[in-house]
Amino acid sequence: MKAASRKDYLPIGIFDSGVGGLTVLSALRTRLAGEHYIYLGDTARLPYGTKSRDTVIRYSAQASLRLVEQGIKLLVVACNTASAAALPDLRRLYAPLPVIGVVEPGAQAVCRLLASKDGECHILVMATESTVKGGAYTRAIRALRPDARITGLACSLLVPMAEEGWMDGPIVESVIRRYLEQLGGEAARPLDCIVLGCTHFPPLAASIAAVAGPGIPMIDSAVTTAEAVEAELQKSGLLRPKDEEATGPPLRFLTTDAPERFARVGGLFLNLGLAPEEVELVAL
Amino acid sequence: MKAASRKDYLPIGIFDSGVGGLTVLSALRTRLAGEHYIYLGDTARLPYGTKSRDTVIRYSAQASLRLVEQGIKLLVVACNTASAAALPDLRRLYAPLPVIGVVEPGAQAVCRLLASKDGECHILVMATESTVKGGAYTRAIRALRPDARITGLACSLLVPMAEEGWMDGPIVESVIRRYLEQLGGEAARPLDCIVLGCTHFPPLAASIAAVAGPGIPMIDSAVTTAEAVEAELQKSGLLRPKDEEATGPPLRFLTTDAPERFARVGGLFLNLGLAPEEVELVAL
Repeated sequence: MKAASRKDYLPIGIFDSGVGGLTVLSALRTRLAGEHYIYLGDTARLPYGTKSRDTVIRYSAQASLRLVEQGIKLLVVACNTASAAALPDLRRLYAPLPVIGVVEPGAQAVCRLLASKDGECHILVMATESTVKGGAYTRAIRALRPDARITGLACSLLVPMAEEGWMDGPIVESVIRRYLEQLGGEAARPLDCIVLGCTHFPPLAASIAAVAGPGIPMIDSAVTTAEAVEAELQKSGLLRPKDEEATGPPLRFLTTDAPERFARVGGLFLNLGLAPEEVELVAL
Repeated sequence: MKAASRKDYLPIGIFDSGVGGLTVLSALRTRLAGEHYIYLGDTARLPYGTKSRDTVIRYSAQASLRLVEQGIKLLVVACNTASAAALPDLRRLYAPLPVIGVVEPGAQAVCRLLASKDGECHILVMATESTVKGGAYTRAIRALRPDARITGLACSLLVPMAEEGWMDGPIVESVIRRYLEQLGGEAARPLDCIVLGCTHFPPLAASIAAVAGPGIPMIDSAVTTAEAVEAELQKSGLLRPKDEEATGPPLRFLTTDAPERFARVGGLFLNLGLAPEEVELVAL
């Protein structure tokens, strides 16, 4: 059998509204170094987090289709907003393609962390307006830990702030403080963990810790999502064979707008130098 | 001649990436109270200001087409980013429809203000990344005042901040200060005027004044744009007749996403209560 026609040689597709999902790609490359990846950031229509559920579903379906057309063996929805809104639709539209989001792996990470803690635990989910409104994290965590007390906090401005490259410093901390203050003194404490429910937030973790106080564990979905992808590929016999043949580039980046901006800001999220020539512009 | 078939009875179309252009609609309604208006906010793809010129042109053409299809007698591009990038294309695409942007009227307002000032004057243009990069304000002001010293300052974060309803207070002032500090002490002073080169910025004027210091005049394009629209309608004999017959609603709002968010935030910009039922959802 020719390598090119073998499904296990196909790349993994990763979709996000912008560059935030590159934190998930980073975790995937650490865990599944032998795989090939194709990443699409829908930067022309970013941000998704302040938009309606219907619009998020429509945009997610269009972006995913572009990856499906390239030939992929698994789709990762590396955007919390899209995962929370569009996962059932994407699974239905592109069946039997396995589709993995970041919300369920995030919820699993939370419950693993709190497994040894008896009694009620209080979890703060910081996310976009759309993710908080949809309640997907609350449902996913409660399915595993029915007694959890879960507070959702929409922190929409942190997205453009991270996109502007403002990851720390007094202004970033003031904005985080203003959001956390909305919880009120009572509702805020004690916190057993904070879920970084948007792929833009992990680079802001140190600033969030500086405001929320020390010693509160923070969860992001990247590592557990990579675990979920590995498990799915194992289950379906689609892990890329070690005796690799040359079948296309190991890493491709597609963006719907401004490759040079994608390369500049994306490099910060990926911890990898990225040249504008490495990023392909596509229209959806 | 039946009223419905008369061109002067048609509404004026106004297009913006979101709700910021409602400040222009407000000025139009004050100056041209007898006219009918149809406003389209492309909130599903907002913000335009961090996107590439090509994408801004494509989105502007699609949004304008939707208004043209409704039947309008004049198109106002009430978005600085779209005015700076797309005006020649829109005029070509929809000729002979008159198309008026906000950049030239803004430049006229600056030069009128500084008419009595002899010698070099220093003008700060606060705008989006895209508007500053394109240099449209610099060209428009220099055409009228060749000796002007013009400094462009990209303040991208002020757009989502105003969209979040954060118009004043210490955080807003810190963000403005951080942008102004990029000018350096030398470059910043003395300033003869500040151009609010984004329709999202007028509601932030008091905060900008608090940081930039008192006594620096601020210019926004809304009033001079309304003057330009009146002059154009007069010139082409298209002012709505006083003996008005019933020909459709005086005010319509279209949005590409989330009517309830448009009504909530739009009300702040329009200084007018707006109910979600008054806002029509359209797809582009």
